[in-house]
Amino acid sequence: MDVAGKPYRTIWLDLNDPAVVHVIDQRLLPHRFVVTPLRTYRDGVEAIRTMQVRGAPLIGATAAWSLYLATGEARDVVAEAAVALRAARPTAVNLSWAIDRVLASLDGAGSAEERRERARKAAEAICEEDVAANEALGGHGLALIEHAAARSGIANVLTHCNAGWLATVDWGTATAPIYLAQRRGIPVHVWVDETRPRNQGSSLTAWELGQAGIPHTVIVDNAGGHLMQRGRVDLCIVGTDRTARSGDVANKIGTYLKALAAHDTGVPFYVAAPSSSIDWRIRDGLAEIPIEVRAAEEVSEIQGAQGDELGRVRLTPPGSPAHNPAFDVTPARLVTGLLTERGLCAASEAGLLGLFPEQRTR
Amino acid sequence: MDVAGKPYRTIWLDLNDPAVVHVIDQRLLPHRFVVTPLRTYRDGVEAIRTMQVRGAPLIGATAAWSLYLATGEARDVVAEAAVALRAARPTAVNLSWAIDRVLASLDGAGSAEERRERARKAAEAICEEDVAANEALGGHGLALIEHAAARSGIANVLTHCNAGWLATVDWGTATAPIYLAQRRGIPVHVWVDETRPRNQGSSLTAWELGQAGIPHTVIVDNAGGHLMQRGRVDLCIVGTDRTARSGDVANKIGTYLKALAAHDTGVPFYVAAPSSSIDWRIRDGLAEIPIEVRAAEEVSEIQGAQGDELGRVRLTPPGSPAHNPAFDVTPARLVTGLLTERGLCAASEAGLLGLFPEQRTR
Repeated sequence: MDVAGKPYRTIWLDLNDPAVVHVIDQRLLPHRFVVTPLRTYRDGVEAIRTMQVRGAPLIGATAAWSLYLATGEARDVVAEAAVALRAARPTAVNLSWAIDRVLASLDGAGSAEERRERARKAAEAICEEDVAANEALGGHGLALIEHAAARSGIANVLTHCNAGWLATVDWGTATAPIYLAQRRGIPVHVWVDETRPRNQGSSLTAWELGQAGIPHTVIVDNAGGHLMQRGRVDLCIVGTDRTARSGDVANKIGTYLKALAAHDTGVPFYVAAPSSSIDWRIRDGLAEIPIEVRAAEEVSEIQGAQGDELGRVRLTPPGSPAHNPAFDVTPARLVTGLLTERGLCAASEAGLLGLFPEQRTR
Repeated sequence: MDVAGKPYRTIWLDLNDPAVVHVIDQRLLPHRFVVTPLRTYRDGVEAIRTMQVRGAPLIGATAAWSLYLATGEARDVVAEAAVALRAARPTAVNLSWAIDRVLASLDGAGSAEERRERARKAAEAICEEDVAANEALGGHGLALIEHAAARSGIANVLTHCNAGWLATVDWGTATAPIYLAQRRGIPVHVWVDETRPRNQGSSLTAWELGQAGIPHTVIVDNAGGHLMQRGRVDLCIVGTDRTARSGDVANKIGTYLKALAAHDTGVPFYVAAPSSSIDWRIRDGLAEIPIEVRAAEEVSEIQGAQGDELGRVRLTPPGSPAHNPAFDVTPARLVTGLLTERGLCAASEAGLLGLFPEQRTR
């Protein structure tokens, strides 16, 4: 997508220096747009851990490129890198999926050059497939937006967190249907949950929608239920960090609350779930998906723009502890449908297997 | 309740100067504790409008004392004051209730002195009755905490916004059972929703619980559903700004989402609703309770402590609008029970009329 009119992806190999991969430091958005280099796999681990990059698909792509960087270090440290990357964040399944895929591509590679070349190709393929999957997913979701716009005059979509192009290599997952709708001239407006504690909604989703010229309004996470009660939301589309075989969905903390409100008010609730987010081994999302607990400071302090600088303020009294679970699990029963690159399906094992019959044998 | 070991109420007439009423400037908490004087009814309107004071019962008490101040101005401006006060904030019913009560007390008063004396007595009575009602309400809620503590070892209570002593004259509504439990030695821990956009939870509830030495943990508003799913919440207790005759409850934005999660996970959801919060004229909370929309800056900017100073940071991109509804309505069907000064009842007209039979005729 475009930033100030210039096309970008979220991660790319340097055109002139194959020892450098570039990412956007998403911790500084929406206040500053800074591209930062990754030179070693450790840079990649840090970028994932500190959330310079985030979003399940982009975490996977960053892990893949980090393994590529590991093949080029003084000694090949791919195995070490894979262990460190896998531990960087626990919830997104794309991380392990991408690592496994790059490692598999190295099987039987003889020379260091061959390993490097294969890792590069695997990372590139993961990125290209992410872009293609998101665009296809967007195409399948377009009808949902068209339908809402036809009924309401303008499709009012609520989204939580950032499942936009910044969370992927391009297009985004939840945003792909929205960007496609815009290109088709379908009127669309997005309610953007700010998504505390890290405010990926107000920092990233609002920023990227603004860059794309898509009408949107930031709301606090508390407001969505009220808007749904008042008929001001036509549909919800959110992303997923891990989708169970059953259709249970682990996504950013608070997703479950919006799904409950949508269910209670009859608003359709869709999850944009490319197959890379599906963990076919897991049936019970609530019991089996590990939920990351992050630092209390993400709750007690917040960063923002202060004049031309970035500033941090403390929100809580010094003596008050905070607890910071980063994801929650939305049971499949609250999900109207899963949007995948192969189409829309029911949030159920039967629904998913209808689109992915090759997974029946598991 | 105590602040740094010294007992305070949230509003009081100056002991030495009957032309001055004092309040705590709640916009500066938890970072600074500043007592500020109200000298005219206009100061009272401003205090309510700018949320130096907030919380339905305290809004009512402030309106009452503001009318008292109006009786003492150069010319008696009570009628003018009543109009301005009524318009200061739309959702809390205590505001109109308190104004009507003070105005009624003035009926037939002859001299300026008599009007002033009657207004003072009415304001004092409203405050004393608030304190007594909250303590009684707390006594009726105590069993809920005892029961949870007996079952779980410690009662884990989730609350939203601030329905603490800072929202009332003393004791609080939702917090009254908690403070009483502490005095009885019943183990209790409070999950404090930060309550965006104005963070009354992390600023006020966390602060007052900390002052009282009650164990508590601040969470973002997104986290409560996840904690309920994991069995980490024994019960919810929240306040109300206006309770319909049917048991529908208008409370701080986001309350509805917590009520949905509690209902979905089988966690009891109680609303502390002193009779001053009940609007007996209203049956359908969703259709009939006006919902205040506040400034977008409350969403796009936030205040906190920055070293020894207070600082503000901007959270959203400059081009992104924000929308800021301040309350939502929780339908009675999601409320396990209403805690009043006369006891606990079902959230229904029948339940309320059982405790308040004098309202049957309306």
